[in-house]
Amino acid sequence: MTAREPTVDSARALAALRELRELTGNEHGAQRVAFTETWAAAREWLVGRLDEIDGVSIARDPAGNLWATAPGSGPRTVVIGGHIDSVPDGGWLDGALGTLAGLEVLRALAPEPRQLGVTLVDWADEEGARFGRSLFGSSAAAGTLDPEAVRALTDRDGTTLEQALHDQGLELDRAAEARDRLRDVAAYLELHIEQGPVLEAAGLPLAVVLGTFGVQRHVVRFTGAHAHAGATPMDRRHDAFLAAARSALAFRDDALARDDVRATTGSVRVAPGIVTAFNGTCQITLDQRALHAAVLAEMLDAARAASERIAAEEGCEVAWERVWEIEPIPFDAELIELADEVIRGLAGESRRLPSGPLHDAAEMARRLPTVMLFVKSLGGVSHTAAEDTPPQDIELAVRALHKLARRVLAWAQDR
Amino acid sequence: MTAREPTVDSARALAALRELRELTGNEHGAQRVAFTETWAAAREWLVGRLDEIDGVSIARDPAGNLWATAPGSGPRTVVIGGHIDSVPDGGWLDGALGTLAGLEVLRALAPEPRQLGVTLVDWADEEGARFGRSLFGSSAAAGTLDPEAVRALTDRDGTTLEQALHDQGLELDRAAEARDRLRDVAAYLELHIEQGPVLEAAGLPLAVVLGTFGVQRHVVRFTGAHAHAGATPMDRRHDAFLAAARSALAFRDDALARDDVRATTGSVRVAPGIVTAFNGTCQITLDQRALHAAVLAEMLDAARAASERIAAEEGCEVAWERVWEIEPIPFDAELIELADEVIRGLAGESRRLPSGPLHDAAEMARRLPTVMLFVKSLGGVSHTAAEDTPPQDIELAVRALHKLARRVLAWAQDR
Repeated sequence: MTAREPTVDSARALAALRELRELTGNEHGAQRVAFTETWAAAREWLVGRLDEIDGVSIARDPAGNLWATAPGSGPRTVVIGGHIDSVPDGGWLDGALGTLAGLEVLRALAPEPRQLGVTLVDWADEEGARFGRSLFGSSAAAGTLDPEAVRALTDRDGTTLEQALHDQGLELDRAAEARDRLRDVAAYLELHIEQGPVLEAAGLPLAVVLGTFGVQRHVVRFTGAHAHAGATPMDRRHDAFLAAARSALAFRDDALARDDVRATTGSVRVAPGIVTAFNGTCQITLDQRALHAAVLAEMLDAARAASERIAAEEGCEVAWERVWEIEPIPFDAELIELADEVIRGLAGESRRLPSGPLHDAAEMARRLPTVMLFVKSLGGVSHTAAEDTPPQDIELAVRALHKLARRVLAWAQDR
Repeated sequence: MTAREPTVDSARALAALRELRELTGNEHGAQRVAFTETWAAAREWLVGRLDEIDGVSIARDPAGNLWATAPGSGPRTVVIGGHIDSVPDGGWLDGALGTLAGLEVLRALAPEPRQLGVTLVDWADEEGARFGRSLFGSSAAAGTLDPEAVRALTDRDGTTLEQALHDQGLELDRAAEARDRLRDVAAYLELHIEQGPVLEAAGLPLAVVLGTFGVQRHVVRFTGAHAHAGATPMDRRHDAFLAAARSALAFRDDALARDDVRATTGSVRVAPGIVTAFNGTCQITLDQRALHAAVLAEMLDAARAASERIAAEEGCEVAWERVWEIEPIPFDAELIELADEVIRGLAGESRRLPSGPLHDAAEMARRLPTVMLFVKSLGGVSHTAAEDTPPQDIELAVRALHKLARRVLAWAQDR
């Protein structure tokens, strides 16, 4: 008798994703905004699915995260995560793919005798769409959530985050107790759509994620002197917009010359901003991202130096103000190797990518050996009803998560 | 007995400018917006000054322009123009210098027997500050005002231009009758502040103006595709802002390589314009100016070609829409020579400049031999309370206008 290859019901995961889309979306997209009725309905549906699996214990932690564990013979467990919450008018796969693929992996692994347990976590409010604070549940579990920093956050109707939690039977001051859930966790795994164009362009279905980018975010303000478009000769101008334009191009050129980094000028505001005058002030934003802290620091130094040189050449002043920063969070090197092997086995070729957006895995990577899988996004779009991935790639991704979970269970058992 | 050099009381002109500033300005600047009570008060004060001069006839035409003539022995006359109206919070000299210098020249010339008359005109609503239509009175006199194009213009309170004229005892449908005033006019002269930095930088008080720039004004819209600042690699972006930034720099470089032209990117609007995405659309304005129509056409062709090349390189589309244009209006070559000689005689050195802003003289140049004098502006600023010119230069400019008027009267008599 030949040993049969263990399998996961990937078609069932795809069907569940479609069922959830029917239940909680409309023609504008997914409407599972955290701590709303639609989100609570999605959670209730999810609990019903988990209840079908024999031997799985289900619990909600004080931060609103939902945990479902198929226990092993020992206390330790491997956690697979996702988030069923979405942005308003969001995509059907962003977050939900991770949770529902994890559900099927849990269903497949639950009956097998193992030393380590297998746990699915559905994180609360990954998106932060309603209160502007993303990674709520995973940061509570990682111990990086400061209740005082979020207590007064309000939604557009003036409801506070604290009240919205209360309406869901949760108390903000107890959210930190979610940390207890990470005791005895051996590793964290997450499957997510790429939300970018790289895999589609490469003709590949799957990638292993190297970590999440560090971010340096600044407002850069150029000051010259505005004057009349007709009266002032070209060589006597102090045009703040042109100084900013040259600087934005220099920021881009620096990023193009490096591997796998980003530099984005997103907001651009000029004054006076009228057709008959050149501009005396121009304020832009610069968002820089890199996977290595040293590279990110180099990029920032280079951008400051370029802006100062250009401002001087244009007879302008420049001032920098930091508005946000986060350090790069690399994933576990050994788990990256395992994931790479799993992808090569299933898809023939793997790709290693940094993650541009943040994910709950970034919070977990602060505490645990962590790795993520990306599956191709069509058109590179996300956070819109147009978000999509071919069904065969969704099913392949579920199979990859199942294989990776088995490899990581074995890896953790030996440690 | 030696012939005494005829003189003008330039100190009286300076004193009158200061008196008008006291009467119709405040700490924010001049408030003589056309067709308002303050403007009407300034006009009443001006009529009082004109009434002091023996033998001068005063009349208002149906477009609201004020005419004061010291007649000659024949029907022909030389006109000196200015405008006492200002923008809100405007400068004390913009327009008023021309009118009050002309008043003193009229006072000086009125007693002298001459074949040609001398006429001062104070134009109505040169600035267009209230209704957005500049050169109202002079365009009515030149025959280029279309009543239907301005009838429905409103100020910020919803008052129509037609109603505002009515409140001043004027009827829009009769404004074209102002054309009768240009019958028998031999030449038109105007003194104005430069409103730019060239004379101050050159250390010169006075310039002769070659004409007013032609203008080509366009909206240029770049379309790429916006996406997330983290998810999209640098080499896969279609960043509309960067395409616009490169194009604006190309427009500037083209203008820098030519003599005495302008190219200005004034309005800049990006979408989505948020810190975490690069931009899918960027709409800029381009205002191009040159004194020669062929040069202006070359500049426009070069700008279009540059924007199309850059847009293609950046994976974007570009579309151009003309929002306004006016042809260059050159002043009279013989009068330019006379003015140059007058300035050299008074200041030692002259300068020939194009005018960036439009002036009433541009409307007159369509119909009559016309020339303008510029006097230095400190800091190149205008349309603000900070607008200024040294008193000795103001007085020198009044003397130059007087000498030029005498030269032009003699020139016109011989034609």
